[in-house]
Amino acid sequence: MKQDKVRKIIRFEKGAFIEKEDRVVVEQPATIKINGKEFITIVCSPDKMEEMAIGFLVSERIIPNFKDIQDIRVEEKTGTVHITAKKVYPFFEQLQNKRFISSCCGMSRQGFVFAHDAMIAKKMTEVRVTLTPENCFQLMKEMGESAEMFKQTGGVHNAALCDANGIIVSRMDIGRHNALDKIYGYCLMNDIDIRDKVIVFSGRISSEILMKVAKIGCEIVLSKSAPTELALTLAEDLGITAIGFIRGNSFNLYTHPERIVGEKPKEVF
Amino acid sequence: MKQDKVRKIIRFEKGAFIEKEDRVVVEQPATIKINGKEFITIVCSPDKMEEMAIGFLVSERIIPNFKDIQDIRVEEKTGTVHITAKKVYPFFEQLQNKRFISSCCGMSRQGFVFAHDAMIAKKMTEVRVTLTPENCFQLMKEMGESAEMFKQTGGVHNAALCDANGIIVSRMDIGRHNALDKIYGYCLMNDIDIRDKVIVFSGRISSEILMKVAKIGCEIVLSKSAPTELALTLAEDLGITAIGFIRGNSFNLYTHPERIVGEKPKEVF
Repeated sequence: MKQDKVRKIIRFEKGAFIEKEDRVVVEQPATIKINGKEFITIVCSPDKMEEMAIGFLVSERIIPNFKDIQDIRVEEKTGTVHITAKKVYPFFEQLQNKRFISSCCGMSRQGFVFAHDAMIAKKMTEVRVTLTPENCFQLMKEMGESAEMFKQTGGVHNAALCDANGIIVSRMDIGRHNALDKIYGYCLMNDIDIRDKVIVFSGRISSEILMKVAKIGCEIVLSKSAPTELALTLAEDLGITAIGFIRGNSFNLYTHPERIVGEKPKEVF
Repeated sequence: MKQDKVRKIIRFEKGAFIEKEDRVVVEQPATIKINGKEFITIVCSPDKMEEMAIGFLVSERIIPNFKDIQDIRVEEKTGTVHITAKKVYPFFEQLQNKRFISSCCGMSRQGFVFAHDAMIAKKMTEVRVTLTPENCFQLMKEMGESAEMFKQTGGVHNAALCDANGIIVSRMDIGRHNALDKIYGYCLMNDIDIRDKVIVFSGRISSEILMKVAKIGCEIVLSKSAPTELALTLAEDLGITAIGFIRGNSFNLYTHPERIVGEKPKEVF
């Protein structure tokens, strides 16, 4: 299905209105049905909806493991993804908007907003991957070059799964977290270990994006944009290295510097 | 409550890592309780939460009218907004993720994704406000100048309610639609008629943003970014004038050109 559409528009330039053709990014609802029952509708770019559904359901632990999915079928005409699964956690709908109130003291889990997130997020305690500053610049550059749709329509988020050598897979979507769900779905379907890889993202590192990175099990997230304070609290707590504002020859390293190679000032955070 | 926080970071620039202080935008959960019952938790910038709660609840018709709200109290410590209301529509939770399947034929309502949206969105059939191209550039410029937080942290969306003479109120938030809810809440609390005004927005015109503009009852939306195809379908259907890519001395006019003054090519869309 096409991800953008040519449309007649009126453009104002050089002081006058002219007729023009323009390419506009397509946004479409995808309804996920699990074992015949409507589960959720996600507005997304109409591409790789199979990957998105799998990535979403497994990262959010609605279906506990990829191997619990017995069949997946995309009905393009209606925008429906039919999933047959032998195991489904039933509590998601009750929990998804319930605020998390910490029952323990101490600093741990202080950033969590939703009960469901607090239940499924695991702390990264190892260093499975390291990057040099040059790797960071190079990966961001490669992702930018792969983002053809963004250049043409200006309307999508871009995410890539990488190792130090370059991009393994990149996905675009009008929804921020959909791009990450598609990457995770691709990895599950192709048996790619995500834990020693890096997420490169075009947009802001919000708490939601940071949580998604943690849920899919990545240790490093690189962004050309800003993070939020809540995302950084979560990154600290969950052991994730967060880097933002990768622009030109500089970037900001916010959390867990142990995965970035080089002589760094000590005990900054 | 402060909307950003100073944080120690490690910055890589000119080939070396240095310690630096940086300002990071704050993201915080706000839990809305209606008549003592937890209703929803929205992650937002911790400012004007009263406006956000009122704007959200009335625009989404969870509370049918502003005058149905008898009391509102913000508990800053826990991030809770307590609402006392004499009338609450109970169906929201059941409907909010239910896909809208059109029961009638024809073009109308073709863009609607969610049943709740299709029920409450009304078509704008009048022309209550017109703008010249110069107004569009000037309003976008004014909004950009008012966006101090964005310049400092790079992490928020900015929205403004305007008329042809300038900005009436502007609000920032890390959440796209929160900024619009805050504006609407402000207007309800201060008895400002929104129907002859214009929304200026820093981010993309997604279907969600277009629906919010329709729900609060604005006829024109101006953005410096791209729209999506679904948003433009909705704008056509709901009678809203959508303008994107306002940059330098040019912009794209996508729908309902009758509200923009000037000699335009005929029958483009």
